Amino acid sequence: MKVYNCPNEAEIKEIVKRPAFDISELNAKVSVILNDVKLNADDALRRYGREFDKCDLVDLSVSQDEFDTADASVSSELKDAISLAVSTIEKFHDSQREKERVIETASGVFCWRRSVPIERIGIYVPAGTAPLFSTVLMLAIPARIAGCREVVLCSPPDKNGKIGDAILYAARVCGVTNVFKVGGAQAIAAMAFGTESLPKVFKIFGPGNQYVTSAKQLVAQTGTAIDLPAGPSEVAILADETCVPAFVAADLLSQAEHGVDSQCLLVATDTSIADEVFAAIERQLAVLARKDIAQAALENSSVVIEPDLSKAIALINQYAPEHLIIAVREADAVANHISNAGSVFLGNYSTESAGDYASGTNHTLPTNGYARNYSGVSLDSFVKKITFQKLTDQGLRTLGPAIEIMAAAEGLDAHKNAVSIRLEALT
Amino acid sequence: MKVYNCPNEAEIKEIVKRPAFDISELNAKVSVILNDVKLNADDALRRYGREFDKCDLVDLSVSQDEFDTADASVSSELKDAISLAVSTIEKFHDSQREKERVIETASGVFCWRRSVPIERIGIYVPAGTAPLFSTVLMLAIPARIAGCREVVLCSPPDKNGKIGDAILYAARVCGVTNVFKVGGAQAIAAMAFGTESLPKVFKIFGPGNQYVTSAKQLVAQTGTAIDLPAGPSEVAILADETCVPAFVAADLLSQAEHGVDSQCLLVATDTSIADEVFAAIERQLAVLARKDIAQAALENSSVVIEPDLSKAIALINQYAPEHLIIAVREADAVANHISNAGSVFLGNYSTESAGDYASGTNHTLPTNGYARNYSGVSLDSFVKKITFQKLTDQGLRTLGPAIEIMAAAEGLDAHKNAVSIRLEALT
Repeated sequence: MKVYNCPNEAEIKEIVKRPAFDISELNAKVSVILNDVKLNADDALRRYGREFDKCDLVDLSVSQDEFDTADASVSSELKDAISLAVSTIEKFHDSQREKERVIETASGVFCWRRSVPIERIGIYVPAGTAPLFSTVLMLAIPARIAGCREVVLCSPPDKNGKIGDAILYAARVCGVTNVFKVGGAQAIAAMAFGTESLPKVFKIFGPGNQYVTSAKQLVAQTGTAIDLPAGPSEVAILADETCVPAFVAADLLSQAEHGVDSQCLLVATDTSIADEVFAAIERQLAVLARKDIAQAALENSSVVIEPDLSKAIALINQYAPEHLIIAVREADAVANHISNAGSVFLGNYSTESAGDYASGTNHTLPTNGYARNYSGVSLDSFVKKITFQKLTDQGLRTLGPAIEIMAAAEGLDAHKNAVSIRLEALT
Repeated sequence: MKVYNCPNEAEIKEIVKRPAFDISELNAKVSVILNDVKLNADDALRRYGREFDKCDLVDLSVSQDEFDTADASVSSELKDAISLAVSTIEKFHDSQREKERVIETASGVFCWRRSVPIERIGIYVPAGTAPLFSTVLMLAIPARIAGCREVVLCSPPDKNGKIGDAILYAARVCGVTNVFKVGGAQAIAAMAFGTESLPKVFKIFGPGNQYVTSAKQLVAQTGTAIDLPAGPSEVAILADETCVPAFVAADLLSQAEHGVDSQCLLVATDTSIADEVFAAIERQLAVLARKDIAQAALENSSVVIEPDLSKAIALINQYAPEHLIIAVREADAVANHISNAGSVFLGNYSTESAGDYASGTNHTLPTNGYARNYSGVSLDSFVKKITFQKLTDQGLRTLGPAIEIMAAAEGLDAHKNAVSIRLEALT
């Protein structure tokens, strides 16, 4: 890890900078896949399945039998753990429902807004080394609470044409039964355009590799909404002498094991804290299954020593981390000064792992500095908020003359006339 | 207007279809402008000012003197009208503030979310035939309520290097004093990248021509958030025998006068209603200043006769209009079945003009069918909702074992260890 001691402005710029990639070549490759799926639909999906997933599928959808088999295969202890996570995620996202309130903005003028579910949404769940069933929970639970009428889930099958048991179990628990064995950019295309097997959806959620990310960004330009622009996962940890260095080390490592491009930033108020964290990392790293990945990620990461807490906070806000762990004495007071972050963890017991799985907050969060201008996924992500207004005759009398004046000032005659003709009818 | 009588499925597809444009050529042109501004900053802005706005500016920003002059030039009746609009828009957007609520999702696990303003935002206000000061109100008022620290406004100057008085007056009323005489794609670039004069912002709002729209979509791919993907403005009107045909005609015309690409859709429950509306359009059109534009827009528009109200509602939801006027007997009951629309106007006195200027709802709305998956601009658009969580030692005991099991099942060792090491410390 690169250490900065009381970094100056130029160094801070370097610290907060994210790696930039030229994606034009990737986009060109992915565009070919998108067009192929648009044109050839299921045929293209089956062909890509043979090519990339090494399996030859007749039926792209997961059968009732496969769900049953998955159910029987998942251990009861994992089922109980998932059940606990479902309950916390439900509680927190359910609390995000917005009550409809009618506001009388002027005499006789009533305005309100209503959260209406996006009718059809798609969820992408990557496979790879492990089944990321937590993604299913984080996306399918709020979709259910929002009331989305149709939820489609795509995930790449293994070479036997199967999707991981835990993913299928989690999907069924969350009420998602429309699951397809399709992965990669072709899955995003299928959900965006629809095929014989897959219904077209209006918004696509979920993480994925660079092909999936590129496909999401490309379909977003042609009418399909997406959850968030995606980048490598990140954590920033702010630690003072009240932190437990072994905990800080464990949290840095848990971020680092995601991938070699993971970003970790430790901001410590004293060199001795950083030294203790380094020592703890050494000890913990040795026994990790994914230690090579974690080590590589840490090599690209930064440590800042900044005794001035307000400067440390300013640096973190400038960095705008996806995850922020505040392991300092006055964690709550510091939290009040955080203006850019995806999700924040307060105190020594609030490990990022809690938010990744079970505290109830969503783990789909803005990376790559997007915490400056984007929120993480929440119930809001699954609804549109439609505004309504109703003017009584009194309401039109209240606003009408002002609207006529403003429309005329903007040179919009017919806008004015739509009011005048009504006011005349009232006299 | 093209009339459809009880349209079948194929016809409905045609009715709800929006015109599609190939924007690749446009994007290529606009990319050149974006790169130019990125590289040459203020110099490029001045050069484009000479080229497109026909004025040679030294200072790109609006001076205090210019604000004062604008203030003195705006009539007191327009000031009063703006003042009324400010108060309704403030009331409605202020009601959208979200209270922070701490939810105990499991014993000892506390989660909440906080709305935090996006620090720096940009507003684009097009010029052209008339000064669209209402855009200033609709964007600057919620920005102020949200608490955005820096609000930048760009608008193209006239050939004398001036921005319209009403725009400057509205800007000052809303607390925006950072106003720049820059228009077009170059304004979007300046706000996205920053120049010597213009601060870089994190999110850009506002309407514009196809160059502005393209520029917004391009900068959105490189980290700057934007309000909404934009398309031509639209209205759908649902009318039964209780409607006032002259009002319906006036509302169709007020949409049609926006531009020749404006989209109007009238869904009437009976042919006689449509006929009366047509007659009223003839009468009203003759005296409109922008009658040529309105007439051209209407020629591209559709009228559907559908006596079955539930089918009529289904059609409207499939169309997903930006604006929807419900001029039927049971307007409230029908409104409860609207699932895709930007803003909805109930009853004969709720003209779209009211929402465009003064009812209090926002007029920045999803067009082009995006009402299926996007909300209009609201207070939400100016904040990020950051999630927070705090686990006590009890909280960690409650969730810890479940997190360990789930992390292990996802093959994420270090995620598990971040919990285990804390649980061990607690024993």
